[in-house]
Amino acid sequence: MAQFGIIGHKGRMGLAISVAIEEAGHEFRVGVDMGGDPTPLLDQCDVVVDFSSPDALETNLKAARTAGIPILIGTTGLEKEHFVMLAETANTIPVLQTGNTSLGVTLLAHLVKEAAAKLGPDWDIEVLEMHHRMKVDAPSGTAKLLGEAAAQARGVNLSDAMDSGRHGQTGARTEGDIGFATLRGGTVAGDHSVIFAGNEERITLSHAAENRMIFARGAVRGAEWLIGKDAGRYTMNDVLGL
Amino acid sequence: MAQFGIIGHKGRMGLAISVAIEEAGHEFRVGVDMGGDPTPLLDQCDVVVDFSSPDALETNLKAARTAGIPILIGTTGLEKEHFVMLAETANTIPVLQTGNTSLGVTLLAHLVKEAAAKLGPDWDIEVLEMHHRMKVDAPSGTAKLLGEAAAQARGVNLSDAMDSGRHGQTGARTEGDIGFATLRGGTVAGDHSVIFAGNEERITLSHAAENRMIFARGAVRGAEWLIGKDAGRYTMNDVLGL
Amino acid sequence: MAQFGIIGHKGRMGLAISVAIEEAGHEFRVGVDMGGDPTPLLDQCDVVVDFSSPDALETNLKAARTAGIPILIGTTGLEKEHFVMLAETANTIPVLQTGNTSLGVTLLAHLVKEAAAKLGPDWDIEVLEMHHRMKVDAPSGTAKLLGEAAAQARGVNLSDAMDSGRHGQTGARTEGDIGFATLRGGTVAGDHSVIFAGNEERITLSHAAENRMIFARGAVRGAEWLIGKDAGRYTMNDVLGL
Amino acid sequence: MAQFGIIGHKGRMGLAISVAIEEAGHEFRVGVDMGGDPTPLLDQCDVVVDFSSPDALETNLKAARTAGIPILIGTTGLEKEHFVMLAETANTIPVLQTGNTSLGVTLLAHLVKEAAAKLGPDWDIEVLEMHHRMKVDAPSGTAKLLGEAAAQARGVNLSDAMDSGRHGQTGARTEGDIGFATLRGGTVAGDHSVIFAGNEERITLSHAAENRMIFARGAVRGAEWLIGKDAGRYTMNDVLGL
Repeated sequence: MAQFGIIGHKGRMGLAISVAIEEAGHEFRVGVDMGGDPTPLLDQCDVVVDFSSPDALETNLKAARTAGIPILIGTTGLEKEHFVMLAETANTIPVLQTGNTSLGVTLLAHLVKEAAAKLGPDWDIEVLEMHHRMKVDAPSGTAKLLGEAAAQARGVNLSDAMDSGRHGQTGARTEGDIGFATLRGGTVAGDHSVIFAGNEERITLSHAAENRMIFARGAVRGAEWLIGKDAGRYTMNDVLGL
Repeated sequence: MAQFGIIGHKGRMGLAISVAIEEAGHEFRVGVDMGGDPTPLLDQCDVVVDFSSPDALETNLKAARTAGIPILIGTTGLEKEHFVMLAETANTIPVLQTGNTSLGVTLLAHLVKEAAAKLGPDWDIEVLEMHHRMKVDAPSGTAKLLGEAAAQARGVNLSDAMDSGRHGQTGARTEGDIGFATLRGGTVAGDHSVIFAGNEERITLSHAAENRMIFARGAVRGAEWLIGKDAGRYTMNDVLGL
Repeated sequence: MAQFGIIGHKGRMGLAISVAIEEAGHEFRVGVDMGGDPTPLLDQCDVVVDFSSPDALETNLKAARTAGIPILIGTTGLEKEHFVMLAETANTIPVLQTGNTSLGVTLLAHLVKEAAAKLGPDWDIEVLEMHHRMKVDAPSGTAKLLGEAAAQARGVNLSDAMDSGRHGQTGARTEGDIGFATLRGGTVAGDHSVIFAGNEERITLSHAAENRMIFARGAVRGAEWLIGKDAGRYTMNDVLGL
Repeated sequence: MAQFGIIGHKGRMGLAISVAIEEAGHEFRVGVDMGGDPTPLLDQCDVVVDFSSPDALETNLKAARTAGIPILIGTTGLEKEHFVMLAETANTIPVLQTGNTSLGVTLLAHLVKEAAAKLGPDWDIEVLEMHHRMKVDAPSGTAKLLGEAAAQARGVNLSDAMDSGRHGQTGARTEGDIGFATLRGGTVAGDHSVIFAGNEERITLSHAAENRMIFARGAVRGAEWLIGKDAGRYTMNDVLGL
């Protein structure tokens, strides 16, 4: 049983993580509001999870360093300057930063990379996603993460290869493009498929989330994995041994 | 065994229809090139199938009227003037005009209409399609036909409700919209799904074509059904008894 | 706002229904334990929902009759004698009995019936379902309900046509069979598909439940619909206007 | 351009392979009937493909050795004695034997192995397949091959873990089982899915064949890859660089 700290513990993810901590048999020891300073509190923790905001990152990393405990960062919207801070902090403590804490999505991205590397350019790559009706952007961050995995494996930039939002007289598909299609509706927590469409055969690699708790559970699994590791930068891939 | 005439018999659909005629135990009796005049030939036929061009429609209808045989028209790109000709011809002979000769798609459109009529506005409607890499427009004609069926059932114009090609900061989904998403790749003959996404449940109605022969077979099935019918306008719905 | 009674209110469905009643803006007025007598309590209700046990059915129906309010019965495992009681009670009050309170499944069964009636015997019918790892029987009751809809439309008995649990040297498929395949795993709340597999085309009609609340919500929707109706037997089809 | 020999060239696979050879820009030089002796003919070939019968294997291997050319064997129903012959022959010439020549299925099996190795025992594994109505056994050989890949990755015997043909009172799912479900209908060339069902998330890895030509094309791709290789035993994995 480990002692967990959560920064941003009253946000939607923070609350879900506190549930996931208990589920996994650990203790949610310390919660810090967004904007609060965790430094005096983290002594009591074995690991800290940060789902607050980019602005708070510097303070949070320093607090984890001071306490000498690992930190998992799920905050989105990080910029170049934040990645510099992460790299510096990783000289002292274990740091895991990720845009997607789901173990299933992490594995899927790995499989997509492998498939894209092995299948030749006569296999067209398409990414399909569906989310609930309230989502305001398209395609989803996870869809882009999957497209990025495919692009890397093919040695291209996703921004060059991306073909999203087809409508009207599109012309024939451009070889090497990575297509994106977006569905919205209902309360869908998040479905993603990467389709490799070859000559008269198709491979489809999919992930479906039944609800958003899987992201909280993955964060807890990542955080408990970090405890006792050497200082360094880690990713969700390391948690799965990929 | 019936005697069939095909106008446009050397086109891709014409060739497929000639195969489907033999498969169904009928005889392919008369083939007319695009641009040729079928009038002297149709006496030998029980029914004629026209997959030629809008320009030839007037001549073709006249030839069928002269021979006194039913005509099935699968030509695309018809304008208002052509529909007037069809209506007039239907006073004399049976006329079936359709943009999609697949029986499966015809039934699917019917089921979509029924589902859209019964499910309230809290069920979001999305149309997804995938076709081969050579297709030059999006969404497919069949996807629009399915969206049209849903729109009719909800009493709205598809052009008002259509939300196709989502990309970027889309904002939350607008209630009542009918969304379209397009996948392209490989050699896919044509997959279509209509998704009704409600609160924590989804209904999906799909059609998958293994190849394009199904359109030829549906045309033959429609044509043989026309033989012996009264003069009038018919649709593929009538063939299925919908 | 209507006043609801629940018989069996401490069971899993009872609890879910109490949540769904509040969600829908109604009041959960009276809860009766399994085995308790609801008679003195139902005066305060506009409608009562019974998810208790077949043994309690006689008492429950009598209580609803005495109070003069409609009753929705979701109890499973009813026998012939219970259906006789339902029929008698329906002379006095509105009675809706159903094995599946999901509106989505109700509509799906209706669409399946329609498709099975229109598609000829050269379209093979298969029912596929997936449920969580704890489910102890196969195929699911809902899968059988969908197969039953198809069988009725084709004028056969499901017990004659059912081909479930294929394994080993099965021989070729028997024309007219209705096949069933069962997947088990994870925490899947319930996915069902009915596949019509024709010559080189397939129609698939599917329902996916994200969680079990949809059954509770459907029960509440059915119950509120019953209020004010004439005495008689009703089904979920009536609620959807099918 | 390479010169190909086909043993069993009048069988269904033989004919398809002869088409695939031409498609790929090679020459179909020599065809040998099942039962015929290829020895005097293979001198003219760069590689030979054998889709005949286990009984002919010894003769065929000898003929390839005599000609000093690589051999790809797609014959099914091989026994222990045949594998001994293959091993001996592989001392002299390149030998590729496989039960499935599809590159897509080969890659899928590889991805399944990887996923099964990385995902813990709380992810249930299910294999689903659909084939045309004429198929006489269940589950398909490819479904078993995929289940075998998963079983190997988990360090179990498929025969111990296999749970196929669920029907009736099955009880809850046994942890560690690999489930199989079989759909039959229409003209489906072959669809396979491996589902990893975890807690509130699912990963699905699928392959769909539009028709059976993909097996012939994969065989040709494998055979052309074999030309110029060192003597040894190879698999389709080697062709894809897995």
